[in-house]
Amino acid sequence: MSDQGVTRTLARWAVECRLADIPQDVRDQGVRTFVNWLGCAVGGVSHETVDRALDAVRLFSGPAQATVIGRGDRLDALHAALINGVSSHVLDYDDTHLKTIIHPAGPVASAALAVAEMQPVSGADLLAAMIVGVEVECRIGNAVYPDHYDRGWHITGTAGVFGAAAAVGRLLGLDEQRMTWALGIAATQSSGLREMFGTMCKSFHPGRAAQNGALAAFLAKSGFDSSERGIEAPRGWANVVSTKQDYTEITEGLGKTWEAGLNSYKPFACGIVIHPTIDACIQLREEIGDEVRNIEKVELRTHPLVLELTGKTAPRTGLEGKFSVFHAAATALLRGDGTPTAFTDEAVNDPSIVELRGRVKAETDQSIHEDQVEMTVTFHDGRQVNRRIEHAIGSLDRPLTDEELDRKFIKQSEAILGKEGTERLLSAAWRFAEMDDVAEIARLSVPNGTATSA
Amino acid sequence: MSDQGVTRTLARWAVECRLADIPQDVRDQGVRTFVNWLGCAVGGVSHETVDRALDAVRLFSGPAQATVIGRGDRLDALHAALINGVSSHVLDYDDTHLKTIIHPAGPVASAALAVAEMQPVSGADLLAAMIVGVEVECRIGNAVYPDHYDRGWHITGTAGVFGAAAAVGRLLGLDEQRMTWALGIAATQSSGLREMFGTMCKSFHPGRAAQNGALAAFLAKSGFDSSERGIEAPRGWANVVSTKQDYTEITEGLGKTWEAGLNSYKPFACGIVIHPTIDACIQLREEIGDEVRNIEKVELRTHPLVLELTGKTAPRTGLEGKFSVFHAAATALLRGDGTPTAFTDEAVNDPSIVELRGRVKAETDQSIHEDQVEMTVTFHDGRQVNRRIEHAIGSLDRPLTDEELDRKFIKQSEAILGKEGTERLLSAAWRFAEMDDVAEIARLSVPNGTATSA
Repeated sequence: MSDQGVTRTLARWAVECRLADIPQDVRDQGVRTFVNWLGCAVGGVSHETVDRALDAVRLFSGPAQATVIGRGDRLDALHAALINGVSSHVLDYDDTHLKTIIHPAGPVASAALAVAEMQPVSGADLLAAMIVGVEVECRIGNAVYPDHYDRGWHITGTAGVFGAAAAVGRLLGLDEQRMTWALGIAATQSSGLREMFGTMCKSFHPGRAAQNGALAAFLAKSGFDSSERGIEAPRGWANVVSTKQDYTEITEGLGKTWEAGLNSYKPFACGIVIHPTIDACIQLREEIGDEVRNIEKVELRTHPLVLELTGKTAPRTGLEGKFSVFHAAATALLRGDGTPTAFTDEAVNDPSIVELRGRVKAETDQSIHEDQVEMTVTFHDGRQVNRRIEHAIGSLDRPLTDEELDRKFIKQSEAILGKEGTERLLSAAWRFAEMDDVAEIARLSVPNGTATSA
Repeated sequence: MSDQGVTRTLARWAVECRLADIPQDVRDQGVRTFVNWLGCAVGGVSHETVDRALDAVRLFSGPAQATVIGRGDRLDALHAALINGVSSHVLDYDDTHLKTIIHPAGPVASAALAVAEMQPVSGADLLAAMIVGVEVECRIGNAVYPDHYDRGWHITGTAGVFGAAAAVGRLLGLDEQRMTWALGIAATQSSGLREMFGTMCKSFHPGRAAQNGALAAFLAKSGFDSSERGIEAPRGWANVVSTKQDYTEITEGLGKTWEAGLNSYKPFACGIVIHPTIDACIQLREEIGDEVRNIEKVELRTHPLVLELTGKTAPRTGLEGKFSVFHAAATALLRGDGTPTAFTDEAVNDPSIVELRGRVKAETDQSIHEDQVEMTVTFHDGRQVNRRIEHAIGSLDRPLTDEELDRKFIKQSEAILGKEGTERLLSAAWRFAEMDDVAEIARLSVPNGTATSA
């Protein structure tokens, strides 16, 4: 695994890659990534996490360059990137690169669209920038996953900053040298701890990755330099933050194999590792109906990460509920719900859900894959039913269809934009790659009459 | 080493500590820290690193809340904190907490003074906030040093962000709960790689630490939450970024023993580890005068960190020159200089310095302490002279006097503010703790008539 020129090789590719070089299926996935991100950003915008972040940053925001998606506040582009990154992730409903558990769009699309509001950017250029950004962050993630994640880094933040820098660097027309610096400036801002899961800081990570990556690109454009081996040097990013460094994941097959084509979209508003459990519970509920009231206990056999990441037995808030497989199972059984409404403070404190979650037990099993689960439900009368999920809905083997993405988008957007506004935005989102100026998307995301300057 | 409530204990102390509780000698050191920081911020402001950073961030700056020290541009307080953090460190001429090699004032004073321009803050409050901030960052540094630094983290950035958060949190009147969150939000933004040494990103680190720490405090004020065990949790900051975690360094003796009293100030504009060498060379030059032309070779025995940190044999730029003990020795011998003028692009490319640096050799020796060096100079005729430095000038055993701090300040400031402007600013700096509104300091730092809005 050569460590020669990793950063520069990646920078050169990020500068030189043309949209025409990207296979059609990857471009299609790029459009799906954008549509899903936009719906999540709209859907998350009324969360109090966004309110509190806006309350703080509004004091410091510069010129009204870019839009808070779904809301209409106008902030400088860096702060808009931050807030849109927060809102797109706050419901844990966004996208997932399953090999690394990176949520790719939050850092990349939030940065790229905000900067695209500063200057006219065509949809084709935005699509290419976004795909390149996602490719950069996921390849860097592959190089250090899982060791880096196991150590406690929230990889969406730590790898995402590179993706944002690459995407914005393209929009700014950086040359190879400056793109190399941009990646270095990204490396030295990389941050985000898994300890923050269950708090407002979790969604802060993709927001800051978007903001910091965009700043890295603007600094590099101004000639602000960095190490030219930010990723691979003996004291570079990969060695400092991980025990594993597989640089071939970054440099081999560039332009030939595509991580950006492997993005997936969440059917449920929580960590990807409990999706199989929710899937199983909803399927079972559809089968047994009112019998859910007679459940004595629920036994789960899951991948080991499930309990490590989502083992909270007594969540107190909606955000904490996302990190409780017990809450998720109880809510899916009792309400058939895994969408954002399943992870509100109300749901987490619903007595019947609290009661049932106490009777959900989970064991981990190395032989169970991350998109699998085995569930045994025992009723009061001793009867048992079993359910095994081979591939959870939303996984690469059972991806959401375009129609399912539409329904997910509509459900999130209608509460914010109404029916007509949602139709207009959704229709525009699917054809953004043909637009002359993608700022139109940001304008369409604003509820009528609420656009305001900071 | 208990890890119970480390973050909360530190937060409580940071909130409750009163200026009257701080011993007089620590308060005096706090004033010296401020004076030295201010002189460095003025002195560094014309560096191209600052120009390029300003060029980029000016696009995004918000209301004209705070001053770029020594320059007069008015930026929002977060961006002013960033730029002042950069300028105060860019010449590597600032202060050093020798136990951790943290440069304490850059993150803390840059953040605190910028925020103090948003609302009237008394000198007493600023002094207390600054001392608390320095105490917080140095204690956190002690808990993880040296393992954390050895891994490749630039500890001034990674620990500095906590200090900035604590200092600004005090100015905002955060309660214990919100200060706990502020430290958590700081933890999850902690970043900065040693790989960046010799590039513009090195001084970016204290700048970003100042900016990010200040943002953490404002977010916490707005109710944005974080883990309450950001430092000590199993996946908290200390475990993620270090193999060593000695939490007693953080929680024991709070308010009784003072790291903030142990700050030191650089006589030379480069990494602290080559100060003994420069000291030896300048002393020798004063002794032998023109004989420096007849030097055949220079042999150094140094602490091991010297070659690890400053082993560049062929620096190309002034910034790289700071990481070359060979350049530093040659320049000190030929010019008697270790100030910022010794580390310009011109000096690094001066043929006589380039020629002599090629004849400087260094060996490391575990028995040599960081503030020591042994030097043997051999002349063309075979004669030899030796010089041993027991404690370099600027170390805790030979601290700069107030008069030496004055001279350092004046030399940096006069080129920017002229003689009268320098006298006014320096006089005000020494008595800042008695001011009703310390924004006066920022106003006095501006060259006549150059104050401009961004």
